[in-house]
Amino acid sequence: MKCFLKYPKYCDFPIENLPYGVFTTPQEPSPRIGVAIADLILDLNEVAHLFIGPELRNHQNVFKEATLNSLMALSPQAWKEARETIQSLLSEDNTILQNDVDLRKRAFVSQSEATMHLPARIGDYTDFYSSIHHATNVGIMFRSRENALMPNWKHLPVGYHGRASSVVVSGTSIHRPYGQTLVMDGTDPVFGPCKLMDFELEMAFFVGGSNKLGEPIKMENAEDHIFGFVIMNDWSARDIQKWEYVPLGPFLAKNLGTTISPWVVTTLALEPFKTDNFPQDPKPLPYLRHTDKFNFDINLQVDLTPKGGNVSTTVSRSNYKYLYWTPKQQLVHHTITGCNVNPGDLMGSGTISGETSDSFGSMLEISWKGTKPVSLLDGSQRKFLQDGDTVTMKAVCEGHNFNIGFGTCVGTLLPAKNLTW
Amino acid sequence: MKCFLKYPKYCDFPIENLPYGVFTTPQEPSPRIGVAIADLILDLNEVAHLFIGPELRNHQNVFKEATLNSLMALSPQAWKEARETIQSLLSEDNTILQNDVDLRKRAFVSQSEATMHLPARIGDYTDFYSSIHHATNVGIMFRSRENALMPNWKHLPVGYHGRASSVVVSGTSIHRPYGQTLVMDGTDPVFGPCKLMDFELEMAFFVGGSNKLGEPIKMENAEDHIFGFVIMNDWSARDIQKWEYVPLGPFLAKNLGTTISPWVVTTLALEPFKTDNFPQDPKPLPYLRHTDKFNFDINLQVDLTPKGGNVSTTVSRSNYKYLYWTPKQQLVHHTITGCNVNPGDLMGSGTISGETSDSFGSMLEISWKGTKPVSLLDGSQRKFLQDGDTVTMKAVCEGHNFNIGFGTCVGTLLPAKNLTW
Repeated sequence: MKCFLKYPKYCDFPIENLPYGVFTTPQEPSPRIGVAIADLILDLNEVAHLFIGPELRNHQNVFKEATLNSLMALSPQAWKEARETIQSLLSEDNTILQNDVDLRKRAFVSQSEATMHLPARIGDYTDFYSSIHHATNVGIMFRSRENALMPNWKHLPVGYHGRASSVVVSGTSIHRPYGQTLVMDGTDPVFGPCKLMDFELEMAFFVGGSNKLGEPIKMENAEDHIFGFVIMNDWSARDIQKWEYVPLGPFLAKNLGTTISPWVVTTLALEPFKTDNFPQDPKPLPYLRHTDKFNFDINLQVDLTPKGGNVSTTVSRSNYKYLYWTPKQQLVHHTITGCNVNPGDLMGSGTISGETSDSFGSMLEISWKGTKPVSLLDGSQRKFLQDGDTVTMKAVCEGHNFNIGFGTCVGTLLPAKNLTW
Repeated sequence: MKCFLKYPKYCDFPIENLPYGVFTTPQEPSPRIGVAIADLILDLNEVAHLFIGPELRNHQNVFKEATLNSLMALSPQAWKEARETIQSLLSEDNTILQNDVDLRKRAFVSQSEATMHLPARIGDYTDFYSSIHHATNVGIMFRSRENALMPNWKHLPVGYHGRASSVVVSGTSIHRPYGQTLVMDGTDPVFGPCKLMDFELEMAFFVGGSNKLGEPIKMENAEDHIFGFVIMNDWSARDIQKWEYVPLGPFLAKNLGTTISPWVVTTLALEPFKTDNFPQDPKPLPYLRHTDKFNFDINLQVDLTPKGGNVSTTVSRSNYKYLYWTPKQQLVHHTITGCNVNPGDLMGSGTISGETSDSFGSMLEISWKGTKPVSLLDGSQRKFLQDGDTVTMKAVCEGHNFNIGFGTCVGTLLPAKNLTW
């Protein structure tokens, strides 16, 4: 398969990728759906009439909307046909788009000229806790090595409901939040800006299709409901979290903003990068079992750039494949009591940490609760994030003949606002 | 103020109440907005053109939508004008509607002919834990009397993000869910239908207006964002909850369905029933303080009706006023780290228990973890809910000259579905 557009062999967005996103341009400020190809965007509004296969010819409207929700609501067969149609339109063997100078001019937009938006209206957002190394690290820090994992952890994908309204697209700055913290046990809590701001390196999937309330999604159908993936930074206020989270879980420490990358890489595009599932012992209960591979070899990286922006330091290199629980297990578990999911729901993986400290997915772990400061290339040190720090997360599947990239998930931590109470 | 319609003095929906809801009829299956008056519904579509005050004459469209979100997005001044306009239209001194036989015929629908729907698209749903008696009871049961309340409980309104998709309107049946439970410590978890199904007697408020991400709502503006209240039954699978909830809080035990009453009683209508705030000691941090009354004297009742439906037993009589944290404090705390809220967001109070066992708001407390079975009037006993049980919650402010009622929040627990894995 060869694209009629020229691009470097190992770019993020070759013809084998084709992630979906929502964008605007200065000329056309209405949000619309596009597909990333090399450093361009193919505006699907302009080519919607070319989706003439059996699954899509009566659903061309889904490409003319302001979010991906309607596309996500279609069947996996329709998603496959969409992918094949776009690949065909971009292929050098197909002249329809290639030779139509006028259409090409309208249909391609430079990514550098576009502003990206949230790809979907997120009805509900859930965050899991599926990395065994992360859960173990946190357990050792806050309990002990012997009791690092809670008794339930290897039996079910622990997760919690998050805040959908504060999920934002890459590029959105986050202000250091105010909140209550307890400086020392037995004292009164104090109020002020968070002192221990952190990132969490995660990935998340968007739900496709839906189920009715009271009708769990079975494992055999789970893959049909996993539309695609993005990078996610689950900003976390550690000191606020520590004080608030007992007994009902993280709340305000997490709802100050959650950043996702704008391009949704489809499950179909990730097919060549499937890898063995993480070995599970004990064997989970039957409803959570699957033997087919549904884990992915995706290299992850976190760069930290202090204010000024001249020198970036890579503070973590991790990989999606370190997750103990697969996305299919997460989704099946989520619906087992009958919870209904909808197209555009977002499900985060939890912080993805590898085994070694250079692959940990949060400053909490990298600096081991602040006991091991990290030296940055500009000469400064970090235990947690400082005002002005920009966190850039990257994800890429590296293949022999092509990469499947996710682009970047970027956010800058701004100082606490000057608020008075 | 006297209505031109005749109704009993102490009905739920006098002219002083005027709660909003969304309904359909067999003749007109498109959802539309109405106001409950006595046993009728005033269809606001039909009278939208009569909202000609300065706040609403350019926003009549909000009364023609399928949900209350756009009305909730308007200002408190607009809500006040809407209420005054509707009261005037229904008043015996006003002949516009009263004497227009044709309009009256179109505008009034019998509640018995209507089907009620969720009043708003709920973007996000949060549940608090604000009843001191409930939190203390649970603490005693699962920890000890000495450590019943967690150290943070009296310093902040503990809460967690819930699942918006599974909030359903009164009348929706709930199936007993499947899930993982741990029968005995040290053994493996088992899978099957929940054995300890429970209700939770709550009330919830709908958010009006919004704030931007990063901009907390201050106490002085909080009331402007509390549109109105409903009754809520937070169905809970206690055995599933116990096994899953550490360390990230309740998840599947709660997302199997949450039932709310269909009529949103406005904060304006509750004004005469404001009562003293619950005494708070220690004094909360300044951002959470307010001295004006924002607690409400609302009598609450839970009736349990076994399958067959002939004999109901009142298993709890509680009151909204037992809440330690006010809705204003809940909302201010929710946004303190910068979380953005939107019109139609739902915020639950947490189970509302009084001091004595006949006022506890859940079977967990009423049966004291199953150790004190409750005798029902039909001769049967309950520790938790049985298949076929219907739970009916009622809420009413009882005044000297009129009541402000909330109607009912009803749900039947159906048997677990016959599913196979």
